[in-house]
Parts: sequence; C-alpha cells; structure tokens
Amino acid sequence: MLLEAIYHRPKDNYAYACTNNELHIRIRTKKQDVETVTLLHGDPYQWENGQWLYDRKEMVLTGTDQLFDYWFASISPPFRRLRYGFLLDDATEEVFYGEKGFNEAPSTDIGDYFCFPFLNTIDVFQAPQWVKDTVWYQIFPERFANGNTENDPEGTLDWNSAEPTPTNFFGGDLEGVIQNIPYLKTLGISGIYFTPIFKAHSNHKYDTIDYFEIDPQFGTKETLKELIKVCHQHDIKVMLDAVFNHSGFYFEQFQDVLEKGKDSPYKEWFHVHEFPLDIESSPPNYDTFAFEPSMPKLNTENEEVRNYLLEVGRYWIKEFDIDGWRLDVANEVDHHFWREFRKEVKGLKPELYILGEIWHDSMPWLRGDQFDAVMNYPFTTNLLNLFAHQTISASQFAENMTSVVHMYPKNVNEVNFNLVGSHDTPRVLTECGGDIRRAKQIYSFMLSFTGTPCIYYGDEIGLTGEQDPGCRKCFPWEQEHHNEELFGHIQKHIALRKKYPLLSNEGNLTFLPGDLHEHCLSFTKSNGEETIFVLLNCSEESTTYSLPFELKGKKITNLWTGEDFAAEAESIEVALEGYGFAILKF
Amino acid sequence: MLLEAIYHRPKDNYAYACTNNELHIRIRTKKQDVETVTLLHGDPYQWENGQWLYDRKEMVLTGTDQLFDYWFASISPPFRRLRYGFLLDDATEEVFYGEKGFNEAPSTDIGDYFCFPFLNTIDVFQAPQWVKDTVWYQIFPERFANGNTENDPEGTLDWNSAEPTPTNFFGGDLEGVIQNIPYLKTLGISGIYFTPIFKAHSNHKYDTIDYFEIDPQFGTKETLKELIKVCHQHDIKVMLDAVFNHSGFYFEQFQDVLEKGKDSPYKEWFHVHEFPLDIESSPPNYDTFAFEPSMPKLNTENEEVRNYLLEVGRYWIKEFDIDGWRLDVANEVDHHFWREFRKEVKGLKPELYILGEIWHDSMPWLRGDQFDAVMNYPFTTNLLNLFAHQTISASQFAENMTSVVHMYPKNVNEVNFNLVGSHDTPRVLTECGGDIRRAKQIYSFMLSFTGTPCIYYGDEIGLTGEQDPGCRKCFPWEQEHHNEELFGHIQKHIALRKKYPLLSNEGNLTFLPGDLHEHCLSFTKSNGEETIFVLLNCSEESTTYSLPFELKGKKITNLWTGEDFAAEAESIEVALEGYGFAILKF
Repeated sequence: MLLEAIYHRPKDNYAYACTNNELHIRIRTKKQDVETVTLLHGDPYQWENGQWLYDRKEMVLTGTDQLFDYWFASISPPFRRLRYGFLLDDATEEVFYGEKGFNEAPSTDIGDYFCFPFLNTIDVFQAPQWVKDTVWYQIFPERFANGNTENDPEGTLDWNSAEPTPTNFFGGDLEGVIQNIPYLKTLGISGIYFTPIFKAHSNHKYDTIDYFEIDPQFGTKETLKELIKVCHQHDIKVMLDAVFNHSGFYFEQFQDVLEKGKDSPYKEWFHVHEFPLDIESSPPNYDTFAFEPSMPKLNTENEEVRNYLLEVGRYWIKEFDIDGWRLDVANEVDHHFWREFRKEVKGLKPELYILGEIWHDSMPWLRGDQFDAVMNYPFTTNLLNLFAHQTISASQFAENMTSVVHMYPKNVNEVNFNLVGSHDTPRVLTECGGDIRRAKQIYSFMLSFTGTPCIYYGDEIGLTGEQDPGCRKCFPWEQEHHNEELFGHIQKHIALRKKYPLLSNEGNLTFLPGDLHEHCLSFTKSNGEETIFVLLNCSEESTTYSLPFELKGKKITNLWTGEDFAAEAESIEVALEGYGFAILKF
Repeated sequence: MLLEAIYHRPKDNYAYACTNNELHIRIRTKKQDVETVTLLHGDPYQWENGQWLYDRKEMVLTGTDQLFDYWFASISPPFRRLRYGFLLDDATEEVFYGEKGFNEAPSTDIGDYFCFPFLNTIDVFQAPQWVKDTVWYQIFPERFANGNTENDPEGTLDWNSAEPTPTNFFGGDLEGVIQNIPYLKTLGISGIYFTPIFKAHSNHKYDTIDYFEIDPQFGTKETLKELIKVCHQHDIKVMLDAVFNHSGFYFEQFQDVLEKGKDSPYKEWFHVHEFPLDIESSPPNYDTFAFEPSMPKLNTENEEVRNYLLEVGRYWIKEFDIDGWRLDVANEVDHHFWREFRKEVKGLKPELYILGEIWHDSMPWLRGDQFDAVMNYPFTTNLLNLFAHQTISASQFAENMTSVVHMYPKNVNEVNFNLVGSHDTPRVLTECGGDIRRAKQIYSFMLSFTGTPCIYYGDEIGLTGEQDPGCRKCFPWEQEHHNEELFGHIQKHIALRKKYPLLSNEGNLTFLPGDLHEHCLSFTKSNGEETIFVLLNCSEESTTYSLPFELKGKKITNLWTGEDFAAEAESIEVALEGYGFAILKF
C-alpha cells in the first residue's frame, strides 16, 4: 500500500458538516491501490470501552483522478462529536491511519484518532436553499436591450450597428431587461446576474464612481425597483456585481486624494506609498488592481472604508431587495472584511447568495464564514478543453473534474457557480469553432451537472464573439439571427433540470470509468432509489455504448425523448450520433 | 519521483504570511526522493512576459519525518501578490507541480500556478511579541501556597498534611502567590498561567458558579489586583483560565433552568433536548461536557450567552489588566464565537495572548482569526515517550517532532504553548520513574526548543505524583524537600534562554539526521550568522558524538560551562555522560 499517497486532514473538503447533524468524511488513496476503506468512529468520551473499534462504516469510492482514489462516508454522530480513523485494506495488508500516522492495527489510544470535536450549527456551511435549483443568466446591461432611448449616453450608436469596442456605447439599460423578462421566462432561467450597474465611467461599469447610485445610462433607482419587482413576480432572483477590491478613477474619494494628497480626509482609504499620487509612474506609487493606475485598491482594513462598503452591501438589500452579491476580484480583499460582510448582509437577508470571483482553488473562502460559492473556472476550463478546444480526452476530463469535485465539500459543489463563458472570455460557440453540436453538448453537460449553471446572454441563440470586446456584442433581437436549434436545446434542458431534481443537485455524482469507451463521457447521479445516467459522445463518429449496469427487467426512461422501455437483455447498448448524447433514468 | 507523495495547498501551514510583507512557502515530497526543489514565482499581473519562469528560488530542506521531506522558502513579493509553482528534480527527471497537477515542464499558463492573491496585513497571524520570550509557570492555586488562613474554606486540612483527593482542600490562595513572587523570580519565569480562580464549587474550580467573581477561598478582587500589580512590577505576565464550553452545576442560570424548566428566561442558554431537565438520565437530556450532567454545555450560538461570555472576556482585561486567556475545551466551542472573542479582547488589549486547550491537530483555530496558540500536547506526548517512557528512539522522536513542527506555520510554532505536565497528567519526575537525569533532559530540551515553555508548579523541585489527584499535591515550601539539582538545572536553562535568543525563538530549527548516532538527539537553530547546537544522550551509557559541521578554526562556546574553544581538528567530538547533554554555539 502506498502510504505516501494517503491524505486526510479534518475540516475543509476532507471532514465537514453537511447539515446540523451530519458529517462527511473523505480520504484519498493512491489510484487503484486500496480495495476497501473502513471508517472507525466513536464519541470522544466513550473511548474507555473501545467503542470506536466496533463502530465501523464502509467507505464508498466516489471517484478517481490521475493519481488518486477518493473515498466517502456520511455519519451522524449522536452527540455531535467524533473521533475517527481509517482501516485501509489492499488485500495484502491492513493498515490503520489516524492523526499520528500509520499503524499495523487500530490504535487503542484515542489520541491517535482524528477529531471533529463538535458539530456547532453556526459553523456549518449553509448556502441559500434556492441556489441549488437556480439557472442563471448573465446580463451585461449595456448590450442586452435598449428599453429607453431617453437615457442613452452621448454618442450612443444604433443598436448592433457596429462591432463592440472597449469604449463605444449602444444604450442597453434596465428598462430593456424589464421588457424582455417574457423572453427569459420562455428560456426558463430563474436568476439574473448583472455585471455592474452602479454609476461608472466605462461601458462595463467596473470602474465605480458611486456605489450608491445607478448609472444614469441604465435608468434610475425606480427602474431597478421595478425590475426587481417584475423579476420576483416571475420567480427570478437578481444578483448585482460589487467591485470592493478597488474603486474607479473618478470615485470622489480617490479624486479628493489625487487633488489634496496627504491633506485629504480620504488619504487612508487607499494604500498610498507616498504623496502626491503619481498616476504616470509605473508601477503607480499607490496600490492598484494589477498595475492599472485608474483602479486604486481600496484599503478595506480601514474602518471608514469598511463601514462605507458594508453599508453598500446592506443598502441594495434593504432598499431594493436584491438576492445576491457577486464580488469582483474577491480573492484580493482581506478575509476579515468578507467575514464582516457575510455577517452584515446575511443579518439582513439570510437567503442572500454571496458569490466570489476567484479563479483558483478557493477553499479558504468557502469554509462557511465568507462566501457561498465562487465562479467555478476550473469547471469552465475543463469543459472548454474537452468540448471546444478538444485538447483533452473524455477520460482526462472525467479525471480532472473528479479532482475539481473533491476539492470542495459536497454542499459547496451544489451551489458553486458553473459558467462556460462570460464578458471576460470568448463566446462558447466561437470557442467551439462554430460547431453547434459541440456547443449543445456543453449545455447538456452543464445543465445536468452538479452546481448552479449560468448562461451568458446571447450564448443561447448562438451569438459569437472573440475575447473582450468581441464577446460583448449587442443582443440581436430579430428572430432571424437566433439559432433556434441551440435555443430549443437549452430550453429543453432547463425544463428537464427543473422536472428531475437528480439532473439538478440531488443525489451523489459519480463519473464512470473512462476505459469503458474511448470517446464517451458519462456520469451518474443517484439518490439510492433512482439513478440518472448522462452520456456524451465526444467524437464526430457515431458509436454505441454498453451500459455497465445490471438493468434487466428495470424500467428505463429516456429523459430527452420521453420514451420508456423495459430492459430485456443483460447488456444494453445506447446508440449515439457523432457529438450526440443521451440522458436515461432508471 | 513519487508524485503521489507531493503535497502543497495554499494557506494554513503550506503558504502563509509570516509578516506584513513576507510569505513562507512549504512543500512536502517523499522522504529522500527529490534532490532539489525550486520555487518559480511571479506577480499575477506580470505573467504576460513569462516572468515567473525566470524568478526562481532554491528551497531548503527543513526536515524529514517517517515518510516525507519538507522544503521551505521565504519570499517577499514586491506587490504583496504571488503566483508560484514548484520545479522538482530527483536527478533522473524534472517535474513541474502547480495547482492543476504535474507537468513535464513549467506551464506557461498562469492558471496552472498556485495563487496567494494578496498579503493583507489584517489577515496575518500575529501573536503578541512578548510570548516568544516568556517562560511560563502553571499554578493550581489551591495547592501552591496558603498566604491567608482567614479565607480557608470550611474543613481545610493542614498544608501538606494529607494526600490530595478529588474533594479535599488545603487553603492555597492568591495571597500565597504574592508572597512567593520572589521565589518565582529566583527561578526566572516570566509568566504565570493560573488554572481557574473564579467562584466555583470544587477544589479545581473548573465548575464555574460565577464568571465575574473571584472564589472567596482564593481572596478578593483586591487581592487579584494586588497580585497582578506585583507580577507586572516584576515583569511577569498573568494568564487566567476560562471555561466557556460549559458552566458549573451551580451556575445561577443553570440552576434557574433546572428549577423552572421551559419557563426559565435562561432556557436558551443551554442545549436542552426536553424539559424538565433530568440530571439522573444517562445520557442527560441536555448537552454536557462529555457525559457529565454537572457540566452543562453553554449555548454559545445564543446571543445573550455570547454577550455574557464576551463581557467576561473583556471584564478581567479592563478591570484587572490580565495578559492572557487560556480557554478550556476550546475545540468544542464554535469558531464563530472565538472569532468574536478575539476581536473583542484584542480590541481592548492587542497584546493579549489567546491560548486554546486543544489536544489534537489545531490548524483550523490557528489561522490568525481565533487563537494565538494551543496547548502543544503532540509536543508533550513525544517528549515523554522519548525521555520518560523510553518507548521511542531518538530518531523516531526527531521524525515525530518534524511532523509536529511542519503541522503549523513557523510563527505559530514560536508562540505555541509547550508543556510536559499539568494538573491533568502525572508529574514529570514520576513519569521518569524518579530518574532526575531524564527529568533534567526534558527541561534541557524544552527550554532550548521552539515555542513558549511552561513549568507545572513544583515540577522544578522534583515534586512527584500520579495522575490527578496525585499530581495536585501541596507545594512543599521547606527547603529540605526541594531537589536543588533539578531546580538549579532549570534555573540555569531559563537564564541561558534569556541570554541567547537562539535558544528561545530566533532562527530556523533543524533536527540532525537520526543515523548520525543511535542514542543521541540533536538539533540546531541558526540565524545565518550564529548557530546553536543542542545534543542529548538518550542512553544511560556515556558516549561520544562527532559534530557533523565544518568548524575548523571557528570559535565554539559551550553555553552550559561558558568555556570557549577554537576548533582545531577537522572533526570534533563531544563526550557525553549517560543521559548527558551539551549546548554549543558557533
């Protein structure tokens, strides 16, 4: 047994509270090295009779990545306290593993066991219930729809009359969104994520001038109130985007420091190395986002700044009843601030969703005290590499996604924000070289996978575009510019996801072994009673796939066609076209 | 290269801020598998020119345990942001390791690198500066000294006239401590940790009746004020013990719930499963410490309880100027409470030391937002196993301690609370079977090792005693009962530790390989200019040890004897008696 490969450490993704009385325990072993893993467990104060030697639970293999197997057990300790260890068996030897390392036999010293000392409810990671069932739609307001030409900024171009540039304007606004809620309901989405709508200089509005004002080109506070009212009437949640890491150049407090230097009352609002500020120097003589002098980093350790930004967080909830905050460059702001932020906004609205923009491993922000979720870019990368760029195989994808899924607790994965494109990346169809079949597969995967999926406005009708600014085209409202096939595909998937909770976030996810079929990707989600099986042919050749399940006599439903059939043979084969897919339930 | 053995994940003990501008990066590889590890690093926003391929830093091997080697590098990123990866070389192949796994060559995609997004000062783990230089003395007040017979409880026995039992009283008090400050100054300690002194029922006072009152048998609030004044005049810090996990049986609020059941205004102060409370049932029908009905668990998620306990935390700082809080059963109280507790007490006194009683791996409490340190029981266990029980070899000890040291960040280790015995364990000399030579070695090790060491009252004069209640004997003040040899040994070590910061918490710690000598344990601490070398012969046979350093021509100081000598030969040998030791500086 390769002891060096075995890893477990309490908390984070290896031992965590899933609910108020249920713990999830995971362990990692070398790939295909260990045959069984048994969890030995007991109450820390019942150890005198060696109880933990008798309370045993078989762990289940939940996935395999390039190097490791992952094992899982769920346990509900009666007194909410747990000491536990692992008994690993590879058919030639049995090894005990606990906090102090490896033994030949289970230790009789309680101190050698791992400890989850108490399951305190207040520490449990708890995201809003509604997020699991939500399908998001990301709107870049300047380009979605122009509902009111009165508020168009000077120099606004005719809708869709030109390619987007970093500086041009087309007049999209909140009224345009209100007018198109019926369209969004037809598509079936249930949450809108708006990129920033606060007063700012640019067309993307990430350069905030005033966190307490709606940008006039998008409408007024009344328009936003109306928008949110309409959304809520249609069971659509609304999430706004906040840029707390840095302000815009024209943020009043920054302008004051620019002007008055060390005499400004706001001089502590930023990280200034020396006065006066020098916006020409490279790097600037104050901290900025990246090396961008027009994006001065806010000093969130300063009490005034903290209070100001926390009030922003509260204000749009109190006055406008928003349902979520998406936090820009969230990883560069201090943890201390995010803990206060969570306390404040959840204090006002416990069901508010907090989503951080973090591109890398985000475990330190997802421990229950900061965010509910992050933008799941590791998901994006793998999805595009398989279906769009075709740089990895189906089995590599399954391995990579197994790593991603085991990087966080299960209750985090269920609300994590899955995206395949945004205002910062080329559009999906463009990434797929215009191949609609592969774009469809991407949505088949995303809309039946664990997490809360998001569609970038226009992707559903096959809008194309390269990296920003190309990916920020005006939404072409004329029907003839819509790819109805793609729209229908996504629409149907959203409807199925709503109808079958297993397609959303019920059950346990497992990827099927990649060696079952060279070109097919498949996974199941099961709640113990029912299983759904998702199969994607990642090749342009048609093929057949033998279901590796004992199904004889069982009723199988093809969820896509709606057909039921009884499995008659021992072995069932599914025929797939090139880039085809199937979704079965049994 | 054994890829499965390689581990790194940002934050915690693998990538952490050591100061406001310095990051520590560690990585783990299979024992004796890799020859060099190079850190590739760069600013996340300078990646376009591939800077991170050129900024390289050799990592240093800082230790080896049973299975792994640990490597270390310190780095000060100019813009307080870091992307980084590792280049590992085992002489046959070079492997790149980043967040997404292993590659043959350094990835050119920044997303494949690990990320430490921003070094925010407020998130840096910061313990009080003075802790590193403190030597603690633990006092169990009922048994240290009876300074005032007026406050003796009814039935008090004559001092030291009987063996301690779980229920007898000898009249020790705060006045007794004040009178013996000169003794403590002679010993050289600089901090006192008092087990509980608040009003309680038992002789150990862990069953709090009133968190805002001094137990009358120990004196009054005036006595405590006087005690702390005298201590501070003598540069001695004072740490009190708080039991926030549970109250005592006679805690007024609990008695109220016992009496009035669901009509008590305090019914939410505890975790009651059903009313009325049943103190006879097993388990009790309310949550308790362990299964002890007389120790009802406090509901720290309840706002009133939280405010009450936070006020306790503040009160003894505001009114009495205490220097530290030691928190009993700290691991079973919620993290949320401890974060608020830290904020409140550090808000009043930033230099307050927060010490949690946790016996197991405590990383989740040592991230900078909760405790400054924990009781370092993994240290205790290993120390006793080597020197007292003699159940592990010197090299096993070095390996185990290498695991312990690499379990936490370096700045945590420097303030971690190292103990070899307490009111809960048999006394050191008893553990050593009465062998004074081995007890002396324990102190030689502890008082030259990393961390903040603590001496349990009476251990320094060779007091003996088995597990509680045996370990709670009265301090025998008659000189003839003092083991002067042991006292002098500890006194001299404390003085040396004060004189030479490398014996305390300066420099980098390294254990020497165990195969250099079968029976000798040795480690160095070095600040780059000077090195101290600590050597202990763990056998009763005398022996010699060849120094594995190039010292020819260097001045070597024997810190214990004070002798200087110049190294003349290539190889220098140190002669050691059975259970002897040496401390050299060069």
